[in-house]
Amino acid sequence: MVQVNLQSNILGANELLARKNRHTFKDSRVLAVNLMSSPGSGKTTILERTIEKLGDKLNLGVIEGDLYTDQDARRIEKKGVRVVQINTEGTCHLDAGMVGKAYEALSASRLDLVFIENVGNLVCPAEFDLGEDFRVVVISITEGNDKVLKYPLIFREARVVLVNKIDLLDYTDFNLEQFENDLKQVNPSALTFMVSARTGMGIDKWSEFLLEEVRAKIS
Amino acid sequence: MVQVNLQSNILGANELLARKNRHTFKDSRVLAVNLMSSPGSGKTTILERTIEKLGDKLNLGVIEGDLYTDQDARRIEKKGVRVVQINTEGTCHLDAGMVGKAYEALSASRLDLVFIENVGNLVCPAEFDLGEDFRVVVISITEGNDKVLKYPLIFREARVVLVNKIDLLDYTDFNLEQFENDLKQVNPSALTFMVSARTGMGIDKWSEFLLEEVRAKIS
Repeated sequence: MVQVNLQSNILGANELLARKNRHTFKDSRVLAVNLMSSPGSGKTTILERTIEKLGDKLNLGVIEGDLYTDQDARRIEKKGVRVVQINTEGTCHLDAGMVGKAYEALSASRLDLVFIENVGNLVCPAEFDLGEDFRVVVISITEGNDKVLKYPLIFREARVVLVNKIDLLDYTDFNLEQFENDLKQVNPSALTFMVSARTGMGIDKWSEFLLEEVRAKIS
Repeated sequence: MVQVNLQSNILGANELLARKNRHTFKDSRVLAVNLMSSPGSGKTTILERTIEKLGDKLNLGVIEGDLYTDQDARRIEKKGVRVVQINTEGTCHLDAGMVGKAYEALSASRLDLVFIENVGNLVCPAEFDLGEDFRVVVISITEGNDKVLKYPLIFREARVVLVNKIDLLDYTDFNLEQFENDLKQVNPSALTFMVSARTGMGIDKWSEFLLEEVRAKIS
């Protein structure tokens, strides 16, 4: 009898490329952070503030994901760090192949920390491992506190949740306690930082956290 | 000689079902409005306010799209209108088949206007015709004014753009003039309403517009 064994452990193309990226990031001792959120939650502005804090302490690079434009990349470039733009041409997420190529273009010089700003979307990016060290979800106060339960996957996979636009808390109906309870349910180990990229509030603590993570990876 | 003609006009499954929905909506003389936006732009709150304005003038129904939860449907139900929940189980948009089935479940009684609240996402929903009469994109002030150029397809396909959370304009860096210029470039014929679902600002005009559209369809 001829028996055909179907391999159940065949990795999808993305998973293979993500694994390759993970090796690359490890070998070059660079911390890779995947930033995800809805459109308009403030990923780029958070990056601008973070670069201001860490730019003279670390060698930073940014991979910018966007459907069509290079607006965010041009904003980041003004901050004096290396940027590579990926245009997904309508695709709602980055994948590991795109990031691998972008990192090659980025890493001509030695980097300590590379930010990967994903396409603005709470659904698709959650499903694609980019080989990153960890994932960060940005949620802004003005989006409402129901997002954790409505988009659980992206919150479940996050190591860090940045609650942005905290300066607008009093002008919205956002229930911070409910949000924190929901997050505890979906992802009990997530680290939360309250920030306002606009006023700079909380950016210090978040930047210190990143600095510690880079040191831990380098050592 | 045998010639094989490849039909270039084979419609995709979704397009066929969208056409079927369009016929159904026409035959039952119901106006179908597809509401799309980022997560947290305020679609559900806008619906709540709109139902308060139109609930005693029109027979309203709502089809609620969401990945997993029925939170929004329960909010709408409290307003005393008929609601059907579609859970897409992780898919980032509604399709015409889902909407056709939901409308069957909804239309036991005669309706004048059915709102279809799409999954919160600025990318995927734009690609799926649901057979609706027209599309509405909600963009909130707090998301930043760069969204039109970053997500052009969804704005290009919209008949109406609702600019929500206008009460927060002074607390953000949103450049309304830039936004309006960008929108004119991408979609010169889009109708724009400035609203605040939270304070009720602008909901009157938007509701009057809907009332006119329903009358035009019925007559």
